[in-house]
Amino acid sequence: MGKAKRICHLALRFLAFGATLSSVIVMATSHQRAGFFPVYFEAKYTNTPAFKYFVIANSVVTVYGFFVLFLPPKSLLWRFVVALDLVFTMLLISSMSSALAIAYVGKKGNNYAGWLPICGQVPKYCDQVTGALIAGFAAVIIYIVLVFYSIHSVLDPLLLRKT
Amino acid sequence: MGKAKRICHLALRFLAFGATLSSVIVMATSHQRAGFFPVYFEAKYTNTPAFKYFVIANSVVTVYGFFVLFLPPKSLLWRFVVALDLVFTMLLISSMSSALAIAYVGKKGNNYAGWLPICGQVPKYCDQVTGALIAGFAAVIIYIVLVFYSIHSVLDPLLLRKT
Repeated sequence: MGKAKRICHLALRFLAFGATLSSVIVMATSHQRAGFFPVYFEAKYTNTPAFKYFVIANSVVTVYGFFVLFLPPKSLLWRFVVALDLVFTMLLISSMSSALAIAYVGKKGNNYAGWLPICGQVPKYCDQVTGALIAGFAAVIIYIVLVFYSIHSVLDPLLLRKT
Repeated sequence: MGKAKRICHLALRFLAFGATLSSVIVMATSHQRAGFFPVYFEAKYTNTPAFKYFVIANSVVTVYGFFVLFLPPKSLLWRFVVALDLVFTMLLISSMSSALAIAYVGKKGNNYAGWLPICGQVPKYCDQVTGALIAGFAAVIIYIVLVFYSIHSVLDPLLLRKT
């Protein structure tokens, strides 16, 4: 790998680390009380299994992303990192999709099932969840780019080079 | 690739094709009317955006899986298939996760958001959705195996061979 490529690669990994970290922080700190005396309810991410899964998956990937930043460029472990990248990208996609599906119901509701939207009652909570999902989405995109870059440089699937 | 490996590979692809096809058919035919005169409601997959996404994603992968079955073993396109496999695996994982998240709410409800479970009213619909999700899950597992097999044979990430 050339020096420019290496810096670009490291910058992408750093961005991905920042994106997963901020999605965890924003989602984990999201909570809002709503209702009138004496009936309060508190909207928190722990009330929704899909959001818990999102926080756990993004935390795991944050820790992984942190350690990969310090891997020496010549290490043989980089081949293993390609496989791990793939595993963690799948984990991120899965957690992102499930959180997005639930957030969509929270925003729009589902008339047929009788599920009412809750964003009208807890707008601050909704905004924070949206922010976490945007950060998570950025992380997913960066990891997909990293995975396809690895695949491309090893496999040349578009047959651009001569074989 | 040896002959045994090729047959095994083709069998896996055929299984994946069958799994995505059956998940589409089972999900698309799931519907049940419920309620008492004069208020009927019909549970259908088109009422839930996540289930529509599931059907579309699995249909796309079914068509792809069908054509790959007829690709000649010596074709150079197999390198491109590795990248396409990865794309479609991500699509399947994403659609599976969002459908699962919604199905979970349909089964268990979410007390905090005031979303009631609907499976008590439309048990036949719920069973059919569960069947579709199981077939979809099998397809996801097979595609993940195919992707990691390709990665393994090209990259050797566990460094089993001598370099």
